Amino acid sequence: MTGEFLTSLTPEHKKFLVNLFKDGVSFDPKVLRVYASDASLLTGTVLAMVRPESAGQLCEFMRWADAEHVAVHPRGRGTSLSGGCVPTVPGIVVSMLGMDKIIEINKEDFVAVVEPGVNTALLQAECEKLGMFYPPDPASGKATSVGGNVITCAGGLRAVKYGVTRDYVLGLEAVLPGGELVKFGGRSHKDVIGLDLGRLFVGSEGTLGIVTRLILKLLPRPEASASVLVGYPSLDAALASMGKVFAAGILPCAVEFMNETVLEILARTGDVPWPDSVKSLLLFQVDGSKETVPLENARLANQLDDALWRMEGVGKQEEDKLWAYRRRVSAASYVLGPDRIGGDMAVPRGSILKAVRKFEEIAASNGKRLIAFGHAGDGNIHANLHYDASDADDARRTQKTHHELDAAALECGGSLSGEHGGGCLKEVGKQLGQKEHALMLRVRRVFDPSGILNPGKGY
Amino acid sequence: MTGEFLTSLTPEHKKFLVNLFKDGVSFDPKVLRVYASDASLLTGTVLAMVRPESAGQLCEFMRWADAEHVAVHPRGRGTSLSGGCVPTVPGIVVSMLGMDKIIEINKEDFVAVVEPGVNTALLQAECEKLGMFYPPDPASGKATSVGGNVITCAGGLRAVKYGVTRDYVLGLEAVLPGGELVKFGGRSHKDVIGLDLGRLFVGSEGTLGIVTRLILKLLPRPEASASVLVGYPSLDAALASMGKVFAAGILPCAVEFMNETVLEILARTGDVPWPDSVKSLLLFQVDGSKETVPLENARLANQLDDALWRMEGVGKQEEDKLWAYRRRVSAASYVLGPDRIGGDMAVPRGSILKAVRKFEEIAASNGKRLIAFGHAGDGNIHANLHYDASDADDARRTQKTHHELDAAALECGGSLSGEHGGGCLKEVGKQLGQKEHALMLRVRRVFDPSGILNPGKGY
Repeated sequence: MTGEFLTSLTPEHKKFLVNLFKDGVSFDPKVLRVYASDASLLTGTVLAMVRPESAGQLCEFMRWADAEHVAVHPRGRGTSLSGGCVPTVPGIVVSMLGMDKIIEINKEDFVAVVEPGVNTALLQAECEKLGMFYPPDPASGKATSVGGNVITCAGGLRAVKYGVTRDYVLGLEAVLPGGELVKFGGRSHKDVIGLDLGRLFVGSEGTLGIVTRLILKLLPRPEASASVLVGYPSLDAALASMGKVFAAGILPCAVEFMNETVLEILARTGDVPWPDSVKSLLLFQVDGSKETVPLENARLANQLDDALWRMEGVGKQEEDKLWAYRRRVSAASYVLGPDRIGGDMAVPRGSILKAVRKFEEIAASNGKRLIAFGHAGDGNIHANLHYDASDADDARRTQKTHHELDAAALECGGSLSGEHGGGCLKEVGKQLGQKEHALMLRVRRVFDPSGILNPGKGY
Repeated sequence: MTGEFLTSLTPEHKKFLVNLFKDGVSFDPKVLRVYASDASLLTGTVLAMVRPESAGQLCEFMRWADAEHVAVHPRGRGTSLSGGCVPTVPGIVVSMLGMDKIIEINKEDFVAVVEPGVNTALLQAECEKLGMFYPPDPASGKATSVGGNVITCAGGLRAVKYGVTRDYVLGLEAVLPGGELVKFGGRSHKDVIGLDLGRLFVGSEGTLGIVTRLILKLLPRPEASASVLVGYPSLDAALASMGKVFAAGILPCAVEFMNETVLEILARTGDVPWPDSVKSLLLFQVDGSKETVPLENARLANQLDDALWRMEGVGKQEEDKLWAYRRRVSAASYVLGPDRIGGDMAVPRGSILKAVRKFEEIAASNGKRLIAFGHAGDGNIHANLHYDASDADDARRTQKTHHELDAAALECGGSLSGEHGGGCLKEVGKQLGQKEHALMLRVRRVFDPSGILNPGKGY
């Protein structure tokens, strides 16, 4: 039953969808073009876009989709860099942006109940207004939906101290292919009854069901933070310095790194405050109370005595100036070419230097420059290659380089993806063992016997 | 194929086991009696105990067990309070204490690689020697194995700040029924490739496979800590005070509570320092650097201005004196009766007061006293009832009370278990939805088609 999917919709199909979704359906090719792609810029074929406003509506749709054997491609805000939202076979895109309500933020339980379409930054802001804190903080959080974060187990800038999205999902509701609504977990911060299928949805890349409601754990809001941008003569020196920080018992909430190429493109695209002798940057953030942050900051500074240069920022406004350099990286990279292949490999923390050096060698041997930056505290390396798609040789060499980087990450004991997920771009078979992969597919079939949900995606 | 299991071993069976395990097998009824029970004091029938020393040996055993359709009951240090190690059908107990090595503690990767039989407190101590920190801290950590912690997703005292065992499992190896060795995850702190089946093992109560190796995430060791034991005129006042602490943005690493009955039994079984007017206690711990802990402690103290009485401890030795009262609770409780039924319900944090008040009412209406204490920061309530098993009426009333407490926890939106797991004691069907439960059992069958592993256990 995982064979051919519906490749076009009959008038009866369309009538069913219009009856069910009213204004929340589109067959307009111009609209569908948007839903055929995501931030990966890959593209697929969309037969229709539907936008449910309730779990009930979605149940009815999923019952129908299973019966008609039409492929279903759920979607949040479409920020996937690995093609997670791109239909691999013709099908119907289910946009979850019609279900974007914050249902409750509870100060007694330290819990938020939300629909999956809610914007991550909006949820964070609403929690902070109430003295609470939703830590998962993907760099693209202003653009992403919480549901998208959950389904990819998004990490982000603060993961080194606060963990990833998985660690904040207490419960969820989801609609399965066939139309059943299931509920796992709840609003207790602890619950060990039954197999933990709720958290199995986290990072499942939309292959088990479509999440319709989330119960999220919140923390007390740290009242203060401070950041420091630190310059080193080499990546080696930078990472040695990071090692000293952890060895001193300091757990920053963020530790970002940037390699020499990143510094070069930042300097080419704007003013930069560091001297030319700086070839690598680290960016640390610590948080806590108003009283403890200055002390933590001083402890951190003590460990950074190998630095050539530093710039400190205390409080959001000053910190934002430092983080602006980090945030400029993605856009600035395009000076190296109008097209990009991005990597987000993760390696054991102690292997970052080895991995980046290897990546740089591979890039150089293929005549390419390597943009390497990311979450050093987690060993999560954004390794981007730019090229010009109109130059066939460049495109081929870039693709080849990218595959060699992936292989090198695996050789370092790492993973092809620390946060973007397999999507439809990663060669997950290179990482997953055959037996393990087969088990994953068998578990997937428990939830989706007909295989209509996100076919060809994830794993 | 989930029907009748082998109920006795033939000479050929025994010969196979002796050949495979040499000294690591026993058929001696006196030995088997130990392996027939755990801390729940329930008992089952054990045909043999085997103690593998390698994954290879275990693979061969599991292949054989599946072919012979003999039930397999894996076991760590047998500290389960919910009968998690007690055979529900006659079978072979697999003790994992023959695989108890710390293979590696890595200062660059902040990773520990261990066999499942390693003692939790030993691993913690070895990590601390190297300036690192394994946070999961079940109150029984001196007695437990890390494998047992993983398979129940143990929580413990520091969960409110540091999370539970799940949050520290990066990768694992396990042997499945049928004898396949599978490996999930690795030593990267992040990895989102494939369905997260490794973490599905965490809290699976030994129903998916037998874990043979674990890769655990470590943190930098906090260099200092401080505790304060705080007395209130009522539980209401105590929990209101805890609410103020969280609202002030303070995240303690532990927040324990004790109700009036606990204070009474502590006073009956030893000296206590608090005045009679104290009817409820909170016990807080904060950690961090030498410089920040005194400040955090002062911030905490500011929020505890409703307290009648307090006793502070800075540094391990002084803190241990305060924690000794908390650790005495379990033993002291036996003044209320030689036998015990324990609960470890979890409720939303804001519902603790409501739940404990309801539990106390239920106990009183059945002529019982309620021992209530536990991890207030997580809403995790240890609700224990003592009785005399030789008094049939008392036993019946206590059992009835226990069931009513479970029902009350669910009414508060909680779970039957925050850390002990379902084992063979909890009526998980009262908590789990039918559809959700059925899905769990179908996923279980993917790993264990013949149903030989821990039958009747967990869910």
